[in-house]
Amino acid sequence: MPISAARLQRDLERIALATATPGRGAGRPTFSTAWAQAVDYVVGESTACGCRRLVDAAGNVHLRPHGIEDRHPVWLSGSHLDSVPHGGDFDGVVGVVAPLEVLRAAWEDGCTSLPLELVIFAEEEGTTFGLGMLGSRTWVGTLDAARLSELKNAQGQSYLEAGRPYGVSPERFKAERLCPNEYRGLIEIHIEQGPAMWRRNQPVALVTAINGRRQYAVELRGAANHAGSTSMSDRRDALAGAAEMIAMIEALAPSLGPQVVATVGRIECRPNAVNVIPDGVVMTVDVRAPADDVLLDGDAELQRRLTEIAARRGLEIKLVTTESLPAAAMSAEVCQHLRRAAKSVADPLPETVSGALHDAAILAPCLPTAMLFIASRDGISHNPAEFSRIDDLALAAQILYKAVTDPSG
Amino acid sequence: MPISAARLQRDLERIALATATPGRGAGRPTFSTAWAQAVDYVVGESTACGCRRLVDAAGNVHLRPHGIEDRHPVWLSGSHLDSVPHGGDFDGVVGVVAPLEVLRAAWEDGCTSLPLELVIFAEEEGTTFGLGMLGSRTWVGTLDAARLSELKNAQGQSYLEAGRPYGVSPERFKAERLCPNEYRGLIEIHIEQGPAMWRRNQPVALVTAINGRRQYAVELRGAANHAGSTSMSDRRDALAGAAEMIAMIEALAPSLGPQVVATVGRIECRPNAVNVIPDGVVMTVDVRAPADDVLLDGDAELQRRLTEIAARRGLEIKLVTTESLPAAAMSAEVCQHLRRAAKSVADPLPETVSGALHDAAILAPCLPTAMLFIASRDGISHNPAEFSRIDDLALAAQILYKAVTDPSG
Repeated sequence: MPISAARLQRDLERIALATATPGRGAGRPTFSTAWAQAVDYVVGESTACGCRRLVDAAGNVHLRPHGIEDRHPVWLSGSHLDSVPHGGDFDGVVGVVAPLEVLRAAWEDGCTSLPLELVIFAEEEGTTFGLGMLGSRTWVGTLDAARLSELKNAQGQSYLEAGRPYGVSPERFKAERLCPNEYRGLIEIHIEQGPAMWRRNQPVALVTAINGRRQYAVELRGAANHAGSTSMSDRRDALAGAAEMIAMIEALAPSLGPQVVATVGRIECRPNAVNVIPDGVVMTVDVRAPADDVLLDGDAELQRRLTEIAARRGLEIKLVTTESLPAAAMSAEVCQHLRRAAKSVADPLPETVSGALHDAAILAPCLPTAMLFIASRDGISHNPAEFSRIDDLALAAQILYKAVTDPSG
Repeated sequence: MPISAARLQRDLERIALATATPGRGAGRPTFSTAWAQAVDYVVGESTACGCRRLVDAAGNVHLRPHGIEDRHPVWLSGSHLDSVPHGGDFDGVVGVVAPLEVLRAAWEDGCTSLPLELVIFAEEEGTTFGLGMLGSRTWVGTLDAARLSELKNAQGQSYLEAGRPYGVSPERFKAERLCPNEYRGLIEIHIEQGPAMWRRNQPVALVTAINGRRQYAVELRGAANHAGSTSMSDRRDALAGAAEMIAMIEALAPSLGPQVVATVGRIECRPNAVNVIPDGVVMTVDVRAPADDVLLDGDAELQRRLTEIAARRGLEIKLVTTESLPAAAMSAEVCQHLRRAAKSVADPLPETVSGALHDAAILAPCLPTAMLFIASRDGISHNPAEFSRIDDLALAAQILYKAVTDPSG
């Protein structure tokens, strides 16, 4: 049987009902009742089409067809069901229901041994316990029990405490760590969360890399003075300096590469009065690039140009790197496999990079990994207005189905 | 007898003692005990050298030699003794003690009819009742009792209530309004409050105009989006737009004229988060110029360029003029008179414009008016660290003395 858009639509609707904030968007903190309802729905649908459930020690839920032997290598596909507060109904969810639909379609075709395991990663968003991708990080072994015991939810429970009723078992972390040879690779489907595909009318795109991220705090100090009685040439205006820097950063990004983005999202000015020349500015810089050497080049260039502007304007500058996450290249083999799988429905498959982080970035160093994005209307995400077309989701599911059943994969 | 720097020094020290915040700068709210102490000191010194006191209905204190007949036209010179909270010991005060010293020097020379009236304007700063130059505005008739009854100090008293014990009498506002033919002109001495003269080592300068001021509120609306997943070309970043505007405004000022200044002093960004593209910015613009046509040109150019930047970036813009004060040209005759008076001590007398407003700007439309500035160390003002050299003050007093006694004036 083919992929059913109607069934996918029903999945989205049923999961949307599982929210702690009905009428005000998705509210599914990890290990909450609403989250468990959503997980139960997917488990119910999967077991109805011949899958068995396994919860790993990190709290991730795995569903694979009964007909597949224990260590037989399969494709892994999944995403998350936890949401940000007042989030949308598509973020994470589409990446869970797409492999679910593939499992159902295969089951209807009489196939009881589709080499596909559906995974629901626990706590991707990072808004429940203050750090993202906890389930996948723990599964691959980059987070330990000590760190997880420090991460608390709004009720003051740690990941370990809140997760215990849902299978989190630190004593088995090591034993149940991801075994790469049990998997052919990971294919994560996700909404784009940016406007590019929607504007270019691209329903589905292949993600060839997940951007790495560097974040900085910039602090500028100039001299406060009377805005009326200080000539333009006698000023050390911290905000005018910041403005030149923001314009420089905006121009720097495309000069580093077409997929590099840079953002000054936060600014505070002091004393922030209409008739006083500002003597202090604090602002943030967020730079993302699909390769680490680009981030490194960007870092050097940013430092050089910021220092030059500050020196020319007589401003003191303090630049602190507040975060540095490496870029994750997607597997060339899995990308090629997906291009082939898409041949009959989307040829050529448009390509993009992911600016946002995903569980796929965590698994990429361990498993051959790639992602498919579906278009987000107007790029809106983390918002109840989030929307993606059901036909785009069905198309991504079709490509996944094809990829999983392609014997060359 | 010549002007005495030592006596001026003593005046400054005595007035500095009259503060509500000893050790933490000048604290002399208008009509407070500290303010009254400072006024009493000047009145005491003046009456000791043959002056009589008159308080006009607006609360300004006038001191003129006994020997001068009632309607005989005299030079007017003075400034203010009220201060901002934690202000400096020079702002306003130097413009009061300079004519005081001139009156003393003449008295010692046996002159009992120097054509000079010392004036202490009430509430120049605007920090006691929320609006500046109340005494001078009321005296020239541009503020009425109704408006003054609305302006309250920290104790909740209106200007009329708090000022009554100090001579404020709304019933006589009209009768005691400034009579221009009783005065030859106004010469106000003040500290520069900017760094230019100090840097250029100019002890005294002639002020040829007091800048007019336009203030604006700029509101920008773009689109908030994920800082990672939105390409540079798909953005409507309100802060990047604001940065281009701030840089434009900084460059616009000198293109309008060498004495034009423009400042963005206040900025607020929304949502102001490291990983979100800003969708909203509110900022202020403050433009000052020595002539109204320059302000008008600046206004048109500012509107045109802001609109262009916003349109190019797909930002909505709202530009509101929040204040418009005309420029006050100083009297060419009084300026020439002061140049002549300075010939033996400072030739040529450097010239400047005042970026800050002063009582002289209020009187300029009614009386031939000019100002002398003395240098402010590093331009620091409205601050306990405010400092000017006593010799610079003595030099300004000398020029004033010469100007008042020059028969051609």
